[in-house]
Amino acid sequence: MAERIVVALGGNALGKTPEEQLALVKSTARPIVDLVEKGYEVIIGHGNGPQVGMINLAMEFSANKGGSTPSMPFPECGAMTQGYIGYHLQQAIQEELRERGIDRDCATVVTQVVVDEQDPGFRNPTKPVGSFYTKEEAERITAEKGFTFVEDAGRGYRRVVPSPIPRRIVELRVVEQLVKAGDIVITVGGGGIPVVETAQGLKGVAAVIDKDRASALLARDIGADRLIILTAVDRVCINFNKPDQQELAEMNLSDCERYIAEGQFAPGSMLPKVQSCMDFVRGSAHGIALITSLSRAAEALEGKTGTVITR
Amino acid sequence: MAERIVVALGGNALGKTPEEQLALVKSTARPIVDLVEKGYEVIIGHGNGPQVGMINLAMEFSANKGGSTPSMPFPECGAMTQGYIGYHLQQAIQEELRERGIDRDCATVVTQVVVDEQDPGFRNPTKPVGSFYTKEEAERITAEKGFTFVEDAGRGYRRVVPSPIPRRIVELRVVEQLVKAGDIVITVGGGGIPVVETAQGLKGVAAVIDKDRASALLARDIGADRLIILTAVDRVCINFNKPDQQELAEMNLSDCERYIAEGQFAPGSMLPKVQSCMDFVRGSAHGIALITSLSRAAEALEGKTGTVITR
Repeated sequence: MAERIVVALGGNALGKTPEEQLALVKSTARPIVDLVEKGYEVIIGHGNGPQVGMINLAMEFSANKGGSTPSMPFPECGAMTQGYIGYHLQQAIQEELRERGIDRDCATVVTQVVVDEQDPGFRNPTKPVGSFYTKEEAERITAEKGFTFVEDAGRGYRRVVPSPIPRRIVELRVVEQLVKAGDIVITVGGGGIPVVETAQGLKGVAAVIDKDRASALLARDIGADRLIILTAVDRVCINFNKPDQQELAEMNLSDCERYIAEGQFAPGSMLPKVQSCMDFVRGSAHGIALITSLSRAAEALEGKTGTVITR
Repeated sequence: MAERIVVALGGNALGKTPEEQLALVKSTARPIVDLVEKGYEVIIGHGNGPQVGMINLAMEFSANKGGSTPSMPFPECGAMTQGYIGYHLQQAIQEELRERGIDRDCATVVTQVVVDEQDPGFRNPTKPVGSFYTKEEAERITAEKGFTFVEDAGRGYRRVVPSPIPRRIVELRVVEQLVKAGDIVITVGGGGIPVVETAQGLKGVAAVIDKDRASALLARDIGADRLIILTAVDRVCINFNKPDQQELAEMNLSDCERYIAEGQFAPGSMLPKVQSCMDFVRGSAHGIALITSLSRAAEALEGKTGTVITR
């Protein structure tokens, strides 16, 4: 049976404009289709930080400065990024498949991810989104809409949203159906559209879900054999940027814990990636996680590079 | 075997703001799930006129008036509406299914639709999109980007894009896979993201595809038994709004042709709906088309209302 892989792609790797994104997805598609060609089942999770920021900023700017369009809630902006990024990514992968004569489909599934309303993240919003405001504007918006603002190093006040832990992928069975049919599936875009469970069903919430954590949850729940978290470097390092910097070929869970306790991994950067890998490895019967760069993903699966995280 | 139905929903029925849309999808979900409960396989196509207009306006306004976000091409705006509308619609349908204890999935597939670069529509763009410009601005943008502008009844100059005929649904097999798995599928949003075939693969084009025509193509190619085009009235009329107005319970292809020759159906309104039904009925071995209102769709399938279009 084919090994099943969840690949987590960074939103930063997609550029800042539609033209940049359209060019960058082409170089993303090649190593992805390499994996398909090697016989792996491939499911792609991706980030959306710059993209959801762009859409949210534009919608907000237009709504507030006379553009005659309505204000757009944050989860809806996230849903838009899934269409926007999915379209480019699936088109590039479809073309790469076609060029190589591989008769497979690639599909983007609009995906909601359930978070817990009691998540401590909701009491401590930390992720800045949207534009800068004056203190007075921020106070008015807070009174009107209940948003939380923080001052950003003298540049003004900026809205912050929580980053809760993903609990459940609503469209998991849909992804499974498509993978079983042989498709390359793009899902949990931007970590998924964050929703909470209410008596009246699911409800979007203003939050951002870490795409590595959402991809780890997806990998666990869909029974993936491997989770590959892509980053800018080929391997995780300890003593990063110091004279005794050391690349790691492998870590088990207790190594990870020791390095985390030593503060080896930067919060908001390598730390959540390592933690996502740990979550997957812990929750999976036999799964192995890998942290590496996109261009060397196929080699990393052959053990030639990358950092393997095992139980 | 279950009868397979493609339902074409209007984008105008989804409201003008995210709050309106979130409320309206709930009343859309009920008659849709009625069909599911009656045992039909349901595939949903939907319009996006007001929504793609809103997103395009906001992105354009922000890009041109100092919002520091990039200009967004039209097909990318369409892809965003598929995420935005699909998210609300699938959430409402999922909730309606849950409330009725129906264990089925609902999924939105980001969908591209191929149009022909030689389509006469490209030589005669007619669909206005985006904001109004002065003559000077319109001329500058035309020189810069090659857009076509028309003067709009004294209100200024407005960009027009072509409305070519849809030729092929790129993600057709994906939709088929999900329908076979038992899902309610949302696809060809806004008529699909318009793309043309080039030597380097698919390429987005600034155009709008009529959602009824795209739904008819989908219905034909996916082997649907029925195409239901939803509109504001329960039945198609001849001599519409005249003293001798007459509701039609049934038309065959030659009736349709006769009424069209008489000018019975308004261009841009009932005419493309009737033509889409004719295309489906002509192209399908046994398919029947129906034009009716959303609230009476289930009754129309029982022959109690609606206008049936047969070969």
